[in-house]
Amino acid sequence: MILHPDRQLPADPGVRALARALFASVERLPIISPHGHTEARWFAENRPFADPASLLVTPDHYIFRMLYSQGVTLEELGLKPADASRFETDPARVWQVFAAHYHLFRGTPTRAWLDHTLATLFGIEDTLCAATAQASFERIAGLLATEPYRPRALFERFNIEVLATTDSPLDDLASHQALRDSGWTGRVVPTYRPDALVDPSVPGFAERVWQLGERAGCDTSRYAGYLEAHRIRRQAFRALGATATDHGHPSARTADLARDEAASLYDRLLAGRGSPEEAELFRAQMLTEFAAMSLEDGLVMQLHPGAVRNHNPALFARFGANMGADIPARTDYVAALKPLLDRFGNDPRLTLILFTVDETSFSRELAPLAGHYPALLIGPPWWFLDSPHAMRRFREATVETAGFYNTVGFNDDTRAFPSIPARHDVARRVDCAYLAELVATHRLAEHEAAEVAHALAYDLPRRAYRL
Amino acid sequence: MILHPDRQLPADPGVRALARALFASVERLPIISPHGHTEARWFAENRPFADPASLLVTPDHYIFRMLYSQGVTLEELGLKPADASRFETDPARVWQVFAAHYHLFRGTPTRAWLDHTLATLFGIEDTLCAATAQASFERIAGLLATEPYRPRALFERFNIEVLATTDSPLDDLASHQALRDSGWTGRVVPTYRPDALVDPSVPGFAERVWQLGERAGCDTSRYAGYLEAHRIRRQAFRALGATATDHGHPSARTADLARDEAASLYDRLLAGRGSPEEAELFRAQMLTEFAAMSLEDGLVMQLHPGAVRNHNPALFARFGANMGADIPARTDYVAALKPLLDRFGNDPRLTLILFTVDETSFSRELAPLAGHYPALLIGPPWWFLDSPHAMRRFREATVETAGFYNTVGFNDDTRAFPSIPARHDVARRVDCAYLAELVATHRLAEHEAAEVAHALAYDLPRRAYRL
Amino acid sequence: MILHPDRQLPADPGVRALARALFASVERLPIISPHGHTEARWFAENRPFADPASLLVTPDHYIFRMLYSQGVTLEELGLKPADASRFETDPARVWQVFAAHYHLFRGTPTRAWLDHTLATLFGIEDTLCAATAQASFERIAGLLATEPYRPRALFERFNIEVLATTDSPLDDLASHQALRDSGWTGRVVPTYRPDALVDPSVPGFAERVWQLGERAGCDTSRYAGYLEAHRIRRQAFRALGATATDHGHPSARTADLARDEAASLYDRLLAGRGSPEEAELFRAQMLTEFAAMSLEDGLVMQLHPGAVRNHNPALFARFGANMGADIPARTDYVAALKPLLDRFGNDPRLTLILFTVDETSFSRELAPLAGHYPALLIGPPWWFLDSPHAMRRFREATVETAGFYNTVGFNDDTRAFPSIPARHDVARRVDCAYLAELVATHRLAEHEAAEVAHALAYDLPRRAYRL
Repeated sequence: MILHPDRQLPADPGVRALARALFASVERLPIISPHGHTEARWFAENRPFADPASLLVTPDHYIFRMLYSQGVTLEELGLKPADASRFETDPARVWQVFAAHYHLFRGTPTRAWLDHTLATLFGIEDTLCAATAQASFERIAGLLATEPYRPRALFERFNIEVLATTDSPLDDLASHQALRDSGWTGRVVPTYRPDALVDPSVPGFAERVWQLGERAGCDTSRYAGYLEAHRIRRQAFRALGATATDHGHPSARTADLARDEAASLYDRLLAGRGSPEEAELFRAQMLTEFAAMSLEDGLVMQLHPGAVRNHNPALFARFGANMGADIPARTDYVAALKPLLDRFGNDPRLTLILFTVDETSFSRELAPLAGHYPALLIGPPWWFLDSPHAMRRFREATVETAGFYNTVGFNDDTRAFPSIPARHDVARRVDCAYLAELVATHRLAEHEAAEVAHALAYDLPRRAYRL
Repeated sequence: MILHPDRQLPADPGVRALARALFASVERLPIISPHGHTEARWFAENRPFADPASLLVTPDHYIFRMLYSQGVTLEELGLKPADASRFETDPARVWQVFAAHYHLFRGTPTRAWLDHTLATLFGIEDTLCAATAQASFERIAGLLATEPYRPRALFERFNIEVLATTDSPLDDLASHQALRDSGWTGRVVPTYRPDALVDPSVPGFAERVWQLGERAGCDTSRYAGYLEAHRIRRQAFRALGATATDHGHPSARTADLARDEAASLYDRLLAGRGSPEEAELFRAQMLTEFAAMSLEDGLVMQLHPGAVRNHNPALFARFGANMGADIPARTDYVAALKPLLDRFGNDPRLTLILFTVDETSFSRELAPLAGHYPALLIGPPWWFLDSPHAMRRFREATVETAGFYNTVGFNDDTRAFPSIPARHDVARRVDCAYLAELVATHRLAEHEAAEVAHALAYDLPRRAYRL
Repeated sequence: MILHPDRQLPADPGVRALARALFASVERLPIISPHGHTEARWFAENRPFADPASLLVTPDHYIFRMLYSQGVTLEELGLKPADASRFETDPARVWQVFAAHYHLFRGTPTRAWLDHTLATLFGIEDTLCAATAQASFERIAGLLATEPYRPRALFERFNIEVLATTDSPLDDLASHQALRDSGWTGRVVPTYRPDALVDPSVPGFAERVWQLGERAGCDTSRYAGYLEAHRIRRQAFRALGATATDHGHPSARTADLARDEAASLYDRLLAGRGSPEEAELFRAQMLTEFAAMSLEDGLVMQLHPGAVRNHNPALFARFGANMGADIPARTDYVAALKPLLDRFGNDPRLTLILFTVDETSFSRELAPLAGHYPALLIGPPWWFLDSPHAMRRFREATVETAGFYNTVGFNDDTRAFPSIPARHDVARRVDCAYLAELVATHRLAEHEAAEVAHALAYDLPRRAYRL
């Protein structure tokens, strides 16, 4: 049997028994998924997923980056090059290549998530390999064509209470509107992610800013109108259920410029005359502006800083963004956040959730900051750290300083929809394992651990994201 | 029962048995407390502690920073604002707020220390909560009024062999003198902490330097006299039992300037004409000067670098320093300490104990440095790291490179006097747990582990601090 | 008994049983030692090792740095000062000092390696101490004089399949040639380590570059000839079995200059007119040049960046390099490697193995980079990190992102020849312990763990180093 009921729980029999009891109490709680990259369109249209490869392999950068690192080309995995040169178009062949390299994932969370997905969703109980690839492909493909495997049915089967997508201010949110109008009871909400409108260093900035003005009905040629356009679009997101914004910046830097200084900075950048340092300053200023807007409209802020995007220029030129070549960088929070915190850090009406890809900040920066400032909470382990060992290190490095209640539970952060239950399953197991050890070493009473387990799985994400 | 006898010991039954035996051999050793923030006045005057809140809540920044992070105001906790606006003056109400939020401390060392203090000192065996707050307050308040809860009686009850306070060179040490004169046998010694006299960037520097001259009977308007004044005050500290100095600097930077260069730097800074970079250079120079003095007078140096003090300006303006808004920063030691080490690093007569709030330096910098230079030792985990998981990481990251004998045992570093036994209890348990695992995995013989446990709890702090 | 058969294996009985089975399956595999600092001369000449101190104490910086940190002078350890002043010349006395301080190594890998060496090689079953020093010295000295303790016999007894030395391009490789000619079947191969020819900041650069030209028969006064000389010397190394190069640089910085820019940079540096920044740029450029050469000749690149060499100038002046005063520094890879990766990172024909002395880069930089770029692999934990706890942290921080198959097994990296089996023994145990825990927590099937254990001990180093 591929999925042992005690997987991820501690090996020690006594601690395992405690962990098992804790996990049993949260295993079936509804899934709160407040941050991720699924698409509202899937649920609005409710069309069957196309095939096993495009559902499970192609959208998951954790999968193709590992295969690529060991010499498998992205063309073999069915990814289409910009020059439209040859690439694999047969999903069965893509699946075959993937299965033949499945051993590369030993010890990784990808393996755990896939085993869980294959077993629980498709009844595949053997470890994937070249020999069984064809059979598993056919089984999955067959099931995907059936009614119970359509997006809405899976959403319900997964017991998702709420699922947040991540959307551009330029998005018309038509799929979200259609979902609302459809009468379907599944709760899918948008998240306001304005990065492309905030980063002057990405080509096309002025054009996008102009589009923002069009979409909001504002004159974005001036800073005041630009800010107003954000306010208007945030309102539109809120009307369709959004409770949060999200900000993926190269750094956590914030600024708090005088209004006229900010306005003239904007003018220069919009005219294409700003330096890279000015672009960084503008992004920094906008985080503080968004915090001010959050105080007005109540949207929770998420900050995902520190990833070097598209580190591999050849791959970027050939396949575009999000191809697995985003690499973490050292990230400072203590100095970077100070301007924003100086203005809003003491205001308990603001919620700013901090993420990191640099785990050295867990104990040195994030826990001390969130363990002091009323406005701050620590997000769950992000990219490369959303894995059992790293999640355990996260708890060991943050709880002693910031406690459990300055954290926000789990984010699955995935565009691989069928892996959502698997990811929450692993996160709950890891948290219960940690709590069980606190109980076994007499640092926490068992009933307290059960309360914390429930909070981490359900209460804290709902409270933090105001869901 | 709130305090399990095996708390903090490993969950595995075999390892626990080993840890239990090791702990039994050190549990009752006297407490060596070579660094902390209690006040000699308490023991000189020996007056009863006022009330539970001002004894246990108000002086402990770990407590109020956590409560503050979750929306409790410092006013509610009885802290007095600078503008003397309303704040809670009833200690029972402060205690009630604290107790009602006790769940926030789940998983933190604060919880372990408080449970220990409440159980062993006040016989309170239930976990604190809103419902039991009043009863516990009354019980503690009643006991504090009795003879056995006066400072000297507690000192003896805690089995403290020596307790070091931390004092300014401007302090007249009257309480330390009074203690000497009193005939009481408890050993309480001062520690020379000259930060305020060394940091030109804190307003009032020239005034304090003038006061230093007054106190020492020197002309501190020139560098030579300023250094001489330090020498004289160190002598006064030594006369009252001091064996160490302590230096809390923004960074670990040291310098070794030519004498006339240092003197003219001093002149500029004293005249208020130095830049921030010059202030940093002066602090750096003074570390090397103090090392030179230590070679003369034998005082052990402690260096606590890397905390960003008073990160929260609104809180600082309203409540002053030490209000829980000190945040760690990345700290470099390898380049920073080089000027000092180039001069004195090979001299085994110097002892320089290094602390950090940046645990990335444990394995990368502190252990390799202390595992080489005769003058260096590694201090125990400091702020935010003086907790079970972090103490365990400290051992795992330093012992393999620097061994046990380049470390100095535990510091409680607290102004929360009643928590001293609890903090040493946790530290000894964590060390015994670590040693037990070395024995269980056959890396160390049991009798060797017992020797090391004794050394960590007793011999090493005495030797390192020359007590 | 000093060597417990279950040493380093997990304490939990169930996990230990799994680990024991895994370890039994790899314990007797031949040793692949693709990176180290033994000398080909030992095997070419096959003379007996001189005495216990010069075999086991003097060549091991881990040993004398620890003793030095606790006040033992290097003179007492038999190291000869530059001024030829008094030092201990009696190996028995050196051994006595070493043995008397053996407790300092409690908890360190040095202790584990020495216990293993003393027990398995010399039949010494008691822990070394002052009282037994003389007896153990005599026993070892006696055995070293016998045939089975000569270098070649030990090589065979250690079951070494291949052993790589580390050699300068200026080396005539006469010992390697003699070994080839001798008919002995032991495989000892050189490694091309050109640091001294690549670092203009070390005095004598121009002289060494001239010698390189002499050795290669090239005019190295111009850049093209200098590069050609490297190509020719690499060819000579390959002819004697070399499969790899090694690069120990202050940082991981790479550059990809235009050819004429690189050539004029070379001219300036050769003329002694370059700045330290230009020296750094030249080293950076040369890494990219060497990568280009590796694509031509197939030599695997190793990069060991980030050590601050000779941190202690007094010791350096008195005893020279490699005296235990090399200290790690923070090391960046993400920006530093970009120029080289932009050119060659996607080429699976290149193998660049990355090492670090800064473990914060494990999860933040090395695993994400190696988990993406086809040309990159992660080397095993290096200096200060080649110890049980650190090796465990290495796995926990890299496997979840990069898997096992982007790593290369173990390097013993030692000049302490008799410790080679001990070091591989510890590494295999630690890996089996890690794998056993994955099995015990149902993340990996037992047969998969066995495959991975075999790969880590044998297959991966052979594949990565093309042996």
